[in-house]
Amino acid sequence: MSDQTPLHSTDPDNAKRYREQRARKTDPELLISGILQGDRVALSRAITLIESKKASHREVANTIINACLPHASRSVRIGITGVPGVGKSSFIEAFGKYLVRQGKKLAVLAVDPSSTRTHGSILGDKTRMQDLVLSEDAFIRPSPSGETAGGVARKTRETIILCEAAGFDTVIIETVGVGQGELAVHSMVDFFLLLKLAGAGDELQGIKRGIMEMADSVVINKCDGTNVKPAKKAQGEFKRALHLYPPKPGGWQPEVLTASALEETGIEAVWHTISECLVLRRKQGIFETNRREQNRMWLRNTIEDQLLSDFYGDPKIRAAFEEQLTAVENNTVSPFAAAQYLLGLSRQ
Amino acid sequence: MSDQTPLHSTDPDNAKRYREQRARKTDPELLISGILQGDRVALSRAITLIESKKASHREVANTIINACLPHASRSVRIGITGVPGVGKSSFIEAFGKYLVRQGKKLAVLAVDPSSTRTHGSILGDKTRMQDLVLSEDAFIRPSPSGETAGGVARKTRETIILCEAAGFDTVIIETVGVGQGELAVHSMVDFFLLLKLAGAGDELQGIKRGIMEMADSVVINKCDGTNVKPAKKAQGEFKRALHLYPPKPGGWQPEVLTASALEETGIEAVWHTISECLVLRRKQGIFETNRREQNRMWLRNTIEDQLLSDFYGDPKIRAAFEEQLTAVENNTVSPFAAAQYLLGLSRQ
Repeated sequence: MSDQTPLHSTDPDNAKRYREQRARKTDPELLISGILQGDRVALSRAITLIESKKASHREVANTIINACLPHASRSVRIGITGVPGVGKSSFIEAFGKYLVRQGKKLAVLAVDPSSTRTHGSILGDKTRMQDLVLSEDAFIRPSPSGETAGGVARKTRETIILCEAAGFDTVIIETVGVGQGELAVHSMVDFFLLLKLAGAGDELQGIKRGIMEMADSVVINKCDGTNVKPAKKAQGEFKRALHLYPPKPGGWQPEVLTASALEETGIEAVWHTISECLVLRRKQGIFETNRREQNRMWLRNTIEDQLLSDFYGDPKIRAAFEEQLTAVENNTVSPFAAAQYLLGLSRQ
Repeated sequence: MSDQTPLHSTDPDNAKRYREQRARKTDPELLISGILQGDRVALSRAITLIESKKASHREVANTIINACLPHASRSVRIGITGVPGVGKSSFIEAFGKYLVRQGKKLAVLAVDPSSTRTHGSILGDKTRMQDLVLSEDAFIRPSPSGETAGGVARKTRETIILCEAAGFDTVIIETVGVGQGELAVHSMVDFFLLLKLAGAGDELQGIKRGIMEMADSVVINKCDGTNVKPAKKAQGEFKRALHLYPPKPGGWQPEVLTASALEETGIEAVWHTISECLVLRRKQGIFETNRREQNRMWLRNTIEDQLLSDFYGDPKIRAAFEEQLTAVENNTVSPFAAAQYLLGLSRQ
């Protein structure tokens, strides 16, 4: 029986089976036990509930997340960013295949707040990871669409919990290095990797300010063919540049590596670097401290997002805000006086 | 008659004169007309009202700010940052004296949220600018003490408006490159200057991540004596490093200069660079766009600061927050579920 069986089916058995099937899709007990057994269908369905805008779905999702929490947190979470054209998909495909060969169970998620505009430019086309998508040890999930940046981030973070509870021990979170996504991803991972290209200056690559400083390491991708020489040159330049930055907590000094997703070279060295950094951070207690700090941050972020959306969503405020904004822009009222006026309105 | 005349004076004339004097200190009409005539005593008193925690003072301060607004915005606002030891005070003294010689009227303010701990490490000791402090064309005001970062930022921004209305055409805002102050200062100035030392690596200078990327130019200070050679070397290194960053809006490429506050060399070149950048930005319309954007940002920031302090200041929340935070840290509840619980409490 297909998912498309209409509700108005005249066959009572069909209608009953349909209701049962629909109930299974949202039954928290079934989904929880499925996830804990590593059932990918249950995992997918639960993620769909996380992404749903229906209040009843959100409630079931919260139940599932809280049940999964004690079984989560055991994976290594890696953020990968880089502007379009840098070869993220093919790098993740090559890197992911390597990890699966090492016996890892890999989940690949995406944070792409801009996907409302680009209609899912990252991971949306899973066929770009054609080998990985077929692997039984890999789970690939594109970014939820039609969402705000905060919404995508929250949903991705909840999805990580479910993937970990389902037994995935390595989680890659992909994001595009041009938007707000990197900060969010940086605050949900244990290691943050920046992909770059040789030759293209930053101005051409359009990378956002601050991203270089978040990177735990840099990989110059597409180091193959005639690109090898420029890639090695870029490697030297970035090494020098990164030395001008303060070191990371615990003294970790970001590496600059070269790799070719096409020729599948340099991939092992990337994993070696990540492992080395994480071993160091676990030994220093930074790994755990960082995760606790991230949890605290997400509690605060969720609260603050909600407070702001309550305020700005208030019809009284919506009516007055633009007017005050114009007055503030034109220096006819101070930002502080305008703020007091609007806050007064919202308390009425 | 001194300010110290006690209220309990038995001389009725004395008491009357005291009351009159006190009223003058908080009379908005008197203070506004004083400020607009460039009276530094009126300016100082009005800033004291801005810094006051008394609600009645805040009210008078708001009246004064709104009256000054149409006369403000005509200055050039320059942010100067650098870690302790880089020679900020002596650089600002030399730079300020140069500006005053050029016929500028200069106000020097400070944003130092950490001053509660360091008891006003910057500008607190005005004697470090002993020539500038005596100049009739310079006005120096230390950071308000005992304040949160948000509080200092707001008060400094309001103080800028008053200084501009009092006829100061150049405003320098000093901050220490180790805290939260730089972001705030960056969002209230037209040009952001970073002071560095030669020889000391960033790790020694303790500069915060992201500050390099905010700089519109870098000055290697203390380029004198045996320091000239390392300063020139550092200049070359920073030039190369800055080229790896994306260019600023309008295509401005940050300069790396050297200067000696001690020998008062390189100071003119710094002003030349700032002027060149600002001429370019005015021509491109970026100067005005940037200021309007800053006003908008300050409206939003003020609203959001207030919403958060209302929430976290709520006794119901204070009692429950730590408990939820611990649960979140230990993964016994998801950050999202904890946030929903706390938001529910605050709405009760």
